[in-house]
Amino acid sequence: MKTCLDCIPCIFKQMLRAGRIVGLDDDKIKCLLDETADLIPALKMTSTPPEVGRIIYGRLRQLTGNDDPYREIKTQSTRQALKLYPYLKETVASSPDPLLSAIRVAIAGNVIDFGVYDKIDLESSLERVLEQPFAVCDYETFVARLKRAERVIYIGDNAGETVFDRVLIEEIDKPTTYVVREQPVINDAVYDDAVHAGLDKVADIISSGTTAPGTVLDTCSDHFLEMLGEAEFIIAKGQGNYEALSAAPYPIFFMLMAKCPVIAEHMGVKQDDIVLKTIN
Amino acid sequence: MKTCLDCIPCIFKQMLRAGRIVGLDDDKIKCLLDETADLIPALKMTSTPPEVGRIIYGRLRQLTGNDDPYREIKTQSTRQALKLYPYLKETVASSPDPLLSAIRVAIAGNVIDFGVYDKIDLESSLERVLEQPFAVCDYETFVARLKRAERVIYIGDNAGETVFDRVLIEEIDKPTTYVVREQPVINDAVYDDAVHAGLDKVADIISSGTTAPGTVLDTCSDHFLEMLGEAEFIIAKGQGNYEALSAAPYPIFFMLMAKCPVIAEHMGVKQDDIVLKTIN
Repeated sequence: MKTCLDCIPCIFKQMLRAGRIVGLDDDKIKCLLDETADLIPALKMTSTPPEVGRIIYGRLRQLTGNDDPYREIKTQSTRQALKLYPYLKETVASSPDPLLSAIRVAIAGNVIDFGVYDKIDLESSLERVLEQPFAVCDYETFVARLKRAERVIYIGDNAGETVFDRVLIEEIDKPTTYVVREQPVINDAVYDDAVHAGLDKVADIISSGTTAPGTVLDTCSDHFLEMLGEAEFIIAKGQGNYEALSAAPYPIFFMLMAKCPVIAEHMGVKQDDIVLKTIN
Repeated sequence: MKTCLDCIPCIFKQMLRAGRIVGLDDDKIKCLLDETADLIPALKMTSTPPEVGRIIYGRLRQLTGNDDPYREIKTQSTRQALKLYPYLKETVASSPDPLLSAIRVAIAGNVIDFGVYDKIDLESSLERVLEQPFAVCDYETFVARLKRAERVIYIGDNAGETVFDRVLIEEIDKPTTYVVREQPVINDAVYDDAVHAGLDKVADIISSGTTAPGTVLDTCSDHFLEMLGEAEFIIAKGQGNYEALSAAPYPIFFMLMAKCPVIAEHMGVKQDDIVLKTIN
């Protein structure tokens, strides 16, 4: 998915939000917006949004002098999600279709996105998503392909959402590789965040190699690219992974909440719709 | 009112909207956004938003090669408003307090703002504002001061809204000077737009001298500044005039719909509230 003109105001909105979330003062935020402005003329509209995100959130790290400015937010999100874990497990166990219920749970966790929101009401979002109809639901294909697959590659998104992913991985109950970002970017999960969510108990955790807030293939490790090339069954969570992988030649199931209007339009759904969609 | 950090993403959003409204192709809109980005590092956060607007909408005129790219939109807005004119007059005449009703009508016209909206539903907005409670309503002071005033200075805002202003001017029924912008900027009313609305029949029409989308005093003519200095009773319509004049030493009544969250916060009201507020 390419960056579009509507992404440009949104880039500034994200940098303003990011500056405030990580506690920069107004002068430093103005510097951050000035530096963002410097990047606009060179911005290639053929890049995917996470490629752009990789650059601008890299500048945020430089300006804060902090390699992981969302660390505290990520820890809090994971802690909050872990408190919900027994309830999530109970919800899935008592559902007439536990696998579909676990997919809903995993999508509900996708609300923990500090690239999009300032504040997150996790519990009310969870209630909504557990009831909300899917706008796209390739569930039959999901079930059929999952049956044949020996291993699941599960590309994660945000810290805290990781706990919701764990519920789905446990429900799927197959050998799973859980994929995280190489370096902290926004509140995306890195290795430690996945471990805090207990994912090391249910999956192998590897890094894709990217420092972008999405699986930008050009920036991924050879090891991960080989794994993708051989994969039978891939789950990719969230908007950043969809933006980066929507044209990739792999058997991917995207699971997300379409929080951004541009992504919603690209998927042919409405903003805030929930989606389980396969390509290839 | 000063430009704040939240104005920066909004400037890009406005330029994107403006480029689309005036029919630029995507490459030209990207140029417009690039040029807007060039201005950001030099942007003084002590400027008022209309001072910034004067510069960026000036660039839009250059890029379109059109001195009045909103001309057709303004003509349509005025035509649509003139169709509503008999209904507006009837609404005011049949009200228990015709003057207050005419103020509501004038504020309802403030929805015709192509700096904020892509599309405008004039009739439903009118119905809403005619019923909506005021968030601030300095009506008693308005009535008392109006009684003593010999002349009203009425600083207009957008084309089409001019027709709604005419209804209030007719209800006030005092000698009135209606003030327009010197040059076209967004869909703000200039001399011809005021005449199309029939304001020449009920007021003297003068230009403030500014080319900004708001009454930026530094850019106004000496003649207009003298008039302001001597005025007993001033009405200033819309957000741009509030942003430019909120700290001015004149007896102004602001009438507007608080469409922008930053202005709403500055006025101590909620977004979309309606306001009749005096200063000094």
